[in-house]
Amino acid sequence: MSFEKLVFDVFAKNCTSRPVMDTVTSRWGILSLAALLDGTYRFNELRRRVDGVSEKMLSQTLHALERDGLVLRTVQSTIPPRVEYSITDPGRRIATKLAELIDLLQAAMPDISAAQARYDEAR
Amino acid sequence: MSFEKLVFDVFAKNCTSRPVMDTVTSRWGILSLAALLDGTYRFNELRRRVDGVSEKMLSQTLHALERDGLVLRTVQSTIPPRVEYSITDPGRRIATKLAELIDLLQAAMPDISAAQARYDEAR
Repeated sequence: MSFEKLVFDVFAKNCTSRPVMDTVTSRWGILSLAALLDGTYRFNELRRRVDGVSEKMLSQTLHALERDGLVLRTVQSTIPPRVEYSITDPGRRIATKLAELIDLLQAAMPDISAAQARYDEAR
Repeated sequence: MSFEKLVFDVFAKNCTSRPVMDTVTSRWGILSLAALLDGTYRFNELRRRVDGVSEKMLSQTLHALERDGLVLRTVQSTIPPRVEYSITDPGRRIATKLAELIDLLQAAMPDISAAQARYDEAR
């Protein structure tokens, strides 16, 4: 009997983790996952929360996250059908880390803005 | 005397934190910052570490990260000049969070791959 341990490495060009990282860390992927940490959203509610996203981009992002098992799409058979998006357990673990990254980034913005101004002035 | 507190919010369309988030969380931004956590790299060393990146994309990424004050570019006046990239303190805080995200994502890949297979089979 042989056992195979799959090793995933985002540093390797052809690793299947790369497209997943791309989805999760795309602008709309990050913001959608972080928003869904707060609870369940309907499509248009989420679109208002993720300011600036187009219908098409949000739809594509949610489909990719659903395929990855990070977001759950539920349809209630009301008339009209009520479609809701929520986060799964693996999605929550990743979204929590993304929210920490957002907090860190927002807190670093005064330093980053100052660095940008110095850089632009020197050129 | 008046005080102004700048509030940065990546959820807001026109916030200046959005382009910074885009740089930091781009595929090459994530991998470059995470690699530089291990130490100083010359350009071609880093290009080998970040498998698949083109010279142009790595160069653009490093310039943007340098402008944000997250990466430091030092030139030693040898012949030929020795150009090295290292991480700054704000860069290290963000890169550490990105490395945690990478670890989490790689660990979630078996579940994510299984979810993708189920999704594709159902369609």
